[in-house]
This record gives sequence, structure tokens and C-alpha cells, in this order.
Amino acid sequence: MNRKRIVIVGLGLIGGSLAIQLNEKGLASRITGVDANPDHANKALELGLVDEILPLEQAIKQSDVVILAIPVDNLVKILPLVLDQVEQQIVIDLGSTKSLLLHSVDNHPKRGRYVASHPMWGTEHSGPAAAVRGAFENKAVIICNAEGSDEDAVAWTKGMFDKIGMHLLEMDAVAHDLHAAYVSHISHITSFALANTVLEKEKEDDAIFELASAGFESTVRLAKSNPSMWVPIFMQNKENILDVLNEHIAQLRKFKSCLEKENWEYLTELIEGANKIRRILK
Amino acid sequence: MNRKRIVIVGLGLIGGSLAIQLNEKGLASRITGVDANPDHANKALELGLVDEILPLEQAIKQSDVVILAIPVDNLVKILPLVLDQVEQQIVIDLGSTKSLLLHSVDNHPKRGRYVASHPMWGTEHSGPAAAVRGAFENKAVIICNAEGSDEDAVAWTKGMFDKIGMHLLEMDAVAHDLHAAYVSHISHITSFALANTVLEKEKEDDAIFELASAGFESTVRLAKSNPSMWVPIFMQNKENILDVLNEHIAQLRKFKSCLEKENWEYLTELIEGANKIRRILK
Repeated sequence: MNRKRIVIVGLGLIGGSLAIQLNEKGLASRITGVDANPDHANKALELGLVDEILPLEQAIKQSDVVILAIPVDNLVKILPLVLDQVEQQIVIDLGSTKSLLLHSVDNHPKRGRYVASHPMWGTEHSGPAAAVRGAFENKAVIICNAEGSDEDAVAWTKGMFDKIGMHLLEMDAVAHDLHAAYVSHISHITSFALANTVLEKEKEDDAIFELASAGFESTVRLAKSNPSMWVPIFMQNKENILDVLNEHIAQLRKFKSCLEKENWEYLTELIEGANKIRRILK
Repeated sequence: MNRKRIVIVGLGLIGGSLAIQLNEKGLASRITGVDANPDHANKALELGLVDEILPLEQAIKQSDVVILAIPVDNLVKILPLVLDQVEQQIVIDLGSTKSLLLHSVDNHPKRGRYVASHPMWGTEHSGPAAAVRGAFENKAVIICNAEGSDEDAVAWTKGMFDKIGMHLLEMDAVAHDLHAAYVSHISHITSFALANTVLEKEKEDDAIFELASAGFESTVRLAKSNPSMWVPIFMQNKENILDVLNEHIAQLRKFKSCLEKENWEYLTELIEGANKIRRILK
């Protein structure tokens, strides 16, 4: 693949980690950073994630590819404005929800230049200093509604994700948002709620925190995630997340009922059922 | 510390991992394994975790220290029988619940030889083949009701846990079981329930499993845990776990209510509250 002049809008965990990969895999001839937060912009420059910082409009003009790595509420506002300024550039977003975003550019004359994508990678940290080497590798990336994108734009986008080690899936935005609720969004809600459960208790007794086990850490790690990223995801994917959350509360009630009724046989069955997750998680 | 002749009863993940550490830290002159499951016994011998396999009674006679690494339902049955056979040996258990177990030997004439402990380490895997090098290091271990144990027994037990890199805490069994419900047992219930939530959905559509993200994996990892270990823990710690589970369901309902009412301000507050878990988890 020829090296491209790439703009990354949003120099946080995702944008910063992608910048490292684009550099390491030889995909960029130059990376221009855009960030509304001057501290993030300066930090990204200082860390060598990007070669220069420019205002959005100027950055787009001098680019071949524009990658949007910002929270999904800002995406919905900025994507149409970016497409307004595009000639032949490819525009790619990396957001965690897709239906509303694709709807916002359905009838845009430059819709073809846009490729909707969701790389299934992240950590609970945020900001350019959280960027990590080797991110995205061996994870899935979903490209949504590719039939609305120009062939050359989809081809380059797929090539880029392939080069950084991701495996490609395609689906429509509605299916994406449903599945993302199950394999990502609900995990964040359970972690946030578990953290609050324990922090509520901690008011009474500090000792429990000396005891935090690796298992606890694993289930509650995502509770460190940033509300400015996650509240917009929950807003946009409200209906799917409510469906999953209702199902999850119903599943928890089964455990509760087993304990209350001392139904150890059914409790064993519930756990054996849960063990089938081994089929999916190695 | 002088090397001791150590018996490990139960050659699974915990017993096997402890055997590796006892060998590596030079704490044992000989490790004798005892396991009701001949496959586990043979595997432990084959892996070099133990030097020999003997029946329980014979193993106790030839030992200085007996360590019980078996599920908590068996612990309650076997601990009094082991103490019946003990002269000056030290007996240590590694179980995840403590109140019922300590109650079972309250009036035992050899109660002083017994030290109740709970090392806060484990993985979702089980059996001797799951034993890992470096286990327990930098984790907490709780010693309960040490005032009922002989001084020499407590001193050696503390020395052993210190040598394998654990930091020591002491508390009474009632406090232990409450705290363990919050920092360990509830995490397993939420993971089991989350696995069942997603597996329930998967009946309808297989695609979601190609998407499982690192975040999902983190929150659902514990769902692979063995029911023969966990059902007895849930039985013995039922009241505490029900308290935590009720609180957790109440916390999840707050998230549900925010979504239903589109109360994004309160949702942001809930997440900011959860972020305070950073204080505990680095």
C-alpha cells in the first residue's frame, strides 16, 4: 500500500494508539493531528504520535485519509461537516455505535467517501499518554454498511485494518449496535455498577480494599472508563443496552433465587451453563 | 526457616501452585500429595509438583505441616478428621470461607495446631495442570482467629506466606466472610450471570462471538470457574452474598432507570462515582 497523508481527529487512547500502528506498519507518509484539547494535541506531538498539529479544515485539505477517533456524540456532529470539506479523501470513523452516525450522513453527497468502522479494542484509560504499541492486533474490526461507500475507500480501509493485524467482519449498523451492546457495552455497565456496589460498602469499612483479588480487579477494571466516552454510547444505543440490561438483571435474579431457596442443584446448572463461555473465550 | 515435610491435600490449581512455590522458596524438604482423584494425583506426580502420593492418614503421620487445598464443603468434613490424627503437626487450610469451618473445630482438642488462612489468589482454571509458577506473589493472605492457634503454628504459617511473597492481614472469620463476599464472591456471580446473559442471546445469533472484545473477556473470564469449588462457597457464605447481590442489583437498576428516563446527568454521576475505584485498583 502506498503511504498516505493521514489526519487523525481526536488524539486520545484510540487515535494515539492507531497513530503508533500506522507509523510502525508504514502506512503513513505523514500524520497530522487535530484535537480540540490543546493539552492533548501538545502531548501527542511531544510523544511523537503525530508529525504536526493543524486546525481541522487545513488538515483535511492536505490529506488523503481522515480518521475520526472522537466520542460518538461529537462524531454525529463532526462527520457531516468533515464530508462537506472532502474532495477525494477517505473518511473513516472508529466509533462504538453506528446506526445514528450512518443515519446522519445517509443523504450526504459525499457519503461514498466515508467508511464506518468499529475496531473492537480499547482499554479503561484515556488520553494520548494512554496510547499503546501493538494495539488492535488480533482483534476484530467491523465495517458497517459498506455498500454505501466507494469501492476504493472500502479497499484502502480494509487494507489498513489488515496491516495492523485486525480481522475483518462486515455487518449492517443495526446488527452492529445490537451485538456491541452484548459484547462490549453491557460489560461496562456491570463494571460501573460493581464498582459502585463495593464503594457503597466501603463507606462502612476500609479493610476490604486491601483484599481486592485478581478476580475482582478483572471484573471491575472497566469501571475506570471515561464518562465522556461512555455516556454518549449509552445514549445512542439505549434501546439495545436496556434489552441486555434487563436480561442481565433477570439472570442475576436467578442466582439470587437459588441462594434464597437453597436450590443448589439449579445453582450448579446455572454455573455449568455459564462455563460454556469457554467455547468462546480461550 | 527449616525445611519441613509438607503434605498438600488437594492437588488442584491452588494446591499445585502452592507446591511449586514451596519448592522454589526452599520451604519443603519433601512434599507429599494426597488427592481423592487418582488422575489428579498421577498428574501432580508427573508434573513434579509433589515428590510422592500417599493416603491421607499415612501422609499426616510422616509430616510436619498439613495444608488443605480442597473445596470448602470437603474442608468442613475433613478438617476435624485431620486434627484427630495430628500430634505436633501444623494444619493450614486455604479455603475461601471461614466462619463455618472455624466453628467445626471450635472445641476440638487440637484446635491450637490449626491456622485458618485465605490467600487471595486464584484463576478461573482448575486441576493440577492449571498450577502456575509465581502464584500468590504480591497478593493478600488473611489469617483468621489466630488467637485460637498455637503461637508456633501461626509463626510458621506467617513465615511461609511471607516467603512466597504475600502480604499478611488478620481478621476474625465473620469479618472475613463479609469482605470476601464483596471483593471475590460477587465478582464470580456477576461473571456467571453475564456469561448466561450473552449465551442466552447467542441462541439467536452466533455472530456476536466473533466480536468478543478484551473488555468483555475481562468481565466474563471468571465465568469459566468450577461449580464444585464455587457452589460450596455460595452455600456457606449465602447471607453475605445475598446482601451484596441485592445491593448490586439495586446499583444496576439505577443505570437502567437513567437509560429509561434519559437522565444523562445522573448517569454521568454514577460513572464518575464508579471511576473512584481507581483509588483502589492501580
